[in-house]
Amino acid sequence: VCCEPKPVKPKFPTARLTGFFQADAVYFDQDATNIAAVGDAQDGADFRRARLAAVGQAWDNISYQLEMDFAFPGRPSFMDVWLDIEDVILSNNLRIGQFRQPFGMDGLTSVKEMTFLERGLPFAFLPFRQIGAAMYGNQKDELATWAIAGFRYPTDVYGGNVGDNGGYGMATRLTGLLINRPDAGGLLHIGGGFSFLDPSNDQFQFRNQPEVFVGEEGGGVLAGTNPKLSPFVNTGEIDANNASLFSAELAAAHGSFYAQSEFIYAYVDQINGPSLGFSGAYAYCGYFLTGEKRPYNGKAGVYGSVKPRKSVGEEGGIGAWEIATRYSYIDLTDENINGGRLNNITAGLNWYLNPHTKFQFNYIYSMLDAQAGAGPIPDTPAGVGDSNAGIFAMRAQVDF
Amino acid sequence: VCCEPKPVKPKFPTARLTGFFQADAVYFDQDATNIAAVGDAQDGADFRRARLAAVGQAWDNISYQLEMDFAFPGRPSFMDVWLDIEDVILSNNLRIGQFRQPFGMDGLTSVKEMTFLERGLPFAFLPFRQIGAAMYGNQKDELATWAIAGFRYPTDVYGGNVGDNGGYGMATRLTGLLINRPDAGGLLHIGGGFSFLDPSNDQFQFRNQPEVFVGEEGGGVLAGTNPKLSPFVNTGEIDANNASLFSAELAAAHGSFYAQSEFIYAYVDQINGPSLGFSGAYAYCGYFLTGEKRPYNGKAGVYGSVKPRKSVGEEGGIGAWEIATRYSYIDLTDENINGGRLNNITAGLNWYLNPHTKFQFNYIYSMLDAQAGAGPIPDTPAGVGDSNAGIFAMRAQVDF
Amino acid sequence: VCCEPKPVKPKFPTARLTGFFQADAVYFDQDATNIAAVGDAQDGADFRRARLAAVGQAWDNISYQLEMDFAFPGRPSFMDVWLDIEDVILSNNLRIGQFRQPFGMDGLTSVKEMTFLERGLPFAFLPFRQIGAAMYGNQKDELATWAIAGFRYPTDVYGGNVGDNGGYGMATRLTGLLINRPDAGGLLHIGGGFSFLDPSNDQFQFRNQPEVFVGEEGGGVLAGTNPKLSPFVNTGEIDANNASLFSAELAAAHGSFYAQSEFIYAYVDQINGPSLGFSGAYAYCGYFLTGEKRPYNGKAGVYGSVKPRKSVGEEGGIGAWEIATRYSYIDLTDENINGGRLNNITAGLNWYLNPHTKFQFNYIYSMLDAQAGAGPIPDTPAGVGDSNAGIFAMRAQVDF
Repeated sequence: VCCEPKPVKPKFPTARLTGFFQADAVYFDQDATNIAAVGDAQDGADFRRARLAAVGQAWDNISYQLEMDFAFPGRPSFMDVWLDIEDVILSNNLRIGQFRQPFGMDGLTSVKEMTFLERGLPFAFLPFRQIGAAMYGNQKDELATWAIAGFRYPTDVYGGNVGDNGGYGMATRLTGLLINRPDAGGLLHIGGGFSFLDPSNDQFQFRNQPEVFVGEEGGGVLAGTNPKLSPFVNTGEIDANNASLFSAELAAAHGSFYAQSEFIYAYVDQINGPSLGFSGAYAYCGYFLTGEKRPYNGKAGVYGSVKPRKSVGEEGGIGAWEIATRYSYIDLTDENINGGRLNNITAGLNWYLNPHTKFQFNYIYSMLDAQAGAGPIPDTPAGVGDSNAGIFAMRAQVDF
Repeated sequence: VCCEPKPVKPKFPTARLTGFFQADAVYFDQDATNIAAVGDAQDGADFRRARLAAVGQAWDNISYQLEMDFAFPGRPSFMDVWLDIEDVILSNNLRIGQFRQPFGMDGLTSVKEMTFLERGLPFAFLPFRQIGAAMYGNQKDELATWAIAGFRYPTDVYGGNVGDNGGYGMATRLTGLLINRPDAGGLLHIGGGFSFLDPSNDQFQFRNQPEVFVGEEGGGVLAGTNPKLSPFVNTGEIDANNASLFSAELAAAHGSFYAQSEFIYAYVDQINGPSLGFSGAYAYCGYFLTGEKRPYNGKAGVYGSVKPRKSVGEEGGIGAWEIATRYSYIDLTDENINGGRLNNITAGLNWYLNPHTKFQFNYIYSMLDAQAGAGPIPDTPAGVGDSNAGIFAMRAQVDF
Repeated sequence: VCCEPKPVKPKFPTARLTGFFQADAVYFDQDATNIAAVGDAQDGADFRRARLAAVGQAWDNISYQLEMDFAFPGRPSFMDVWLDIEDVILSNNLRIGQFRQPFGMDGLTSVKEMTFLERGLPFAFLPFRQIGAAMYGNQKDELATWAIAGFRYPTDVYGGNVGDNGGYGMATRLTGLLINRPDAGGLLHIGGGFSFLDPSNDQFQFRNQPEVFVGEEGGGVLAGTNPKLSPFVNTGEIDANNASLFSAELAAAHGSFYAQSEFIYAYVDQINGPSLGFSGAYAYCGYFLTGEKRPYNGKAGVYGSVKPRKSVGEEGGIGAWEIATRYSYIDLTDENINGGRLNNITAGLNWYLNPHTKFQFNYIYSMLDAQAGAGPIPDTPAGVGDSNAGIFAMRAQVDF
């Protein structure tokens, strides 16, 4: 009688404080042509991301997230801010708010769980976080996932978009597991996506950094230097009615080895100019020296988070050690647009001390093809010919 | 012996993570005169509010709140940031910090619990959140409430105000229940308030949107369009020594029906011009199709939050469904000030899925009387004659 | 059998929501010369600090903090954002991220636990929060502490710094207890620190307010007034290769009495000018009228937080009452730099209602020596001769 079982009925709402941060240090070694093309990239240290979020259940069938990033421009910037209604149609969920639109395996992989410091170069094309609504679900054995969404486009850093002239987009993604042997760590994933974007400002701009970013605001840098790393490739603003995006995904794993690749093509319906075609792709593989397997998140159709066999600390282990390499490219030059072509080769070493703390080391060799003779476009690599940069970067990350 | 009762002494400080967000989508149908008067209001979607807060007890007699909004200008903006000392004089509490000043039933109703998407038009007059101190309490049977406060005025979005030339204000509010039959859902509430404002900048500006708001920042809208919805009525900056505000409240409920109304008058002691009188009022009523009653918060003298009889989900209900209508007006034209007159009629439909999730749908018919021939005041409806706008807006809200 | 003991193994990560705010009101009484020198300082009220943080353990040997301040410029600004790896070398910890660099007893005392509203004038020299890495530890009986750190310098409000030309710094601090009698509240603390700073912008600027701050943004102040309190002393920007900082600490306590003092000297290697020497110092003492002792934090080598013997509330006490006084000075005038000299005398009264709520009252008499005839430096007291200001300030603080 001393301890009556308490009623197990859950109380709503629940709210859990969660978040993470990434502290980066970056060093550049550019050749003279690269400095002429994109400016003198400054070494530095910065918080790449720093996020706090409330996550929980508003009711038994309603989950939510309210996440802010304090390191992004916007400061804070709206990240995942949504509510989910579960099992709306069959077993499919309805999501309302701002969230990562269903397009691209790399983009949908949690930024806490990336093999490298940044996503591959084709990430430049993604609609990513927009305000809207989506239906999504998965096959009951988690052998396939599907999602379709409509949204306002482009959504600003505070989750808003206005405009009478367009301002809408849609995205959809379908994935499947052709092979699924969790015991052996074996899997073969294929996927594809489509997105149609009709921006309220009738403009598109695609650009990207060389798979690394560091910057600062608020003084401290020399006059004449770049407080922020310039994009290496940049279309500038393109007047366009709309764009269509196509993606194809292929991923596989066997034991401690895993690989992932993606191809993205963007078709842009230019105003007062020819139609444009841009593309990008990446392929990478990773291998755990300490025997772990990279788990697969069957509900989302992406790789999940790494758990070391024996963590550093009371378990007395050395954590998980992983080596990885990636090749990626993006081509933003077509017809009258001279955004440049970038090829990157990256070597990575990751040390997971435990499931919530890791150190990452990347060496990136970045090869920029800026067409000689092309006119200078503001914020765009001028036509100064091919150039190269070597970049070393490291990250400390903790999540909770 | 296995489970000794633990000491029940509470441990301080306590801190609970709480918050909510509101995701809105808005569509405008303006006549040509309205577009000429206030610009072409753009359709859009946005987070109207997104808040995180820590609330708790610092000690047995000290409660606190530290709340930030990430969707308001300021980003984040200080919301309720105060500490309460309980039972300082008799049973009255002392509140120190930034908080909603005691003036106006609509303004003191939680923004999570509003019947419509926005407060009524007279909200434009309220001092609302300012930094200061207040004494407040209620009659022990919760049949009456009182509050009086002094504060710095006007407080900026970060909770600060400076200035040697004035910069102070006071507000007070008294409410009573003439009828109180909680079982039958019957009540009759009356209330009144007074506020005196002596701004440190010797300026007042009253303005309001048509009971809806949507906007964006950070690019994405067409050049030439309004990234933010313009005020429909706007006095512009008035040089004035001080202003006195008067309010009268009347509310009633019977069963699933409830109603609320308020009248506010602002007297402005203009510098280098005649004294000014502005006014506004609203009246609305709501009815629950599913049989709920609107609860009354007797400690604060406002309506409280709606709990569906049977929530959507495991309870197997359809939630609470409510219909409501409101008429409101504001008159910001007097003497040399031509801020315009606005009359709004709103029809609302609310679906409360559970006590913490709701969808709201509003149709607002907004009738703007801008005096023809009046000189254009910056940010103010020009003198282009009467105009109308139809507005449809919807909201998804979750709180935790 | 009814209640089996649950496994006590802690689950990681843990996250606790914590924070505090300080609401200040300030009143100035300046003589005419002082108004001429630094402008007409405006009375006002403001939140001096308002912080939310997540703190916890990512794993058994990894602790972290992610703290944002919403009242500082930057809004929010990065505060303590770091992860600690425990017992890396012997019993020393490794800290990575942004944190207060190990230099100066006053700077390392928690801002929640300061005897006065602001740190003493020499605080102007400290590197304070920078992004980097530190090793730190303490003697096992907590009779000595040590710390050494390397960092990027100067770090902006978002935790970043870039620059190829320098941009580094280091700091180290060593403290010891010569006398340690916790029972009698007796202690004698000595300490010293050194820091070398090589800024990426080859510039230094030292400046300080008169140990009080109030300001606002976002409108509300009269045109022509200062929305922010100007610094009373200010070197302006000095072109310099690097600076070396030296500090000496002395603190003592006996029963309800305690005292602390510090001297800081800054040597600046000026470019295109002579080397510069600036200095500052403070000494203060406090006494608890209600018999408490000021605890000492032996792990950090600073004073800790005050716990009243009997708190206000259910314990029926009057809290802790403390009187304190401080003298401090800073001299920012040397060679070609005419930053001014400031001497402050402060009287303080603190009322701790409980361990987490306090009210503070400071009267500061601020004596500014600006050299007559010196040329006006932007943002710097012009050469208008000696001047004085009396300042009364009060604070309400709650932490959780």
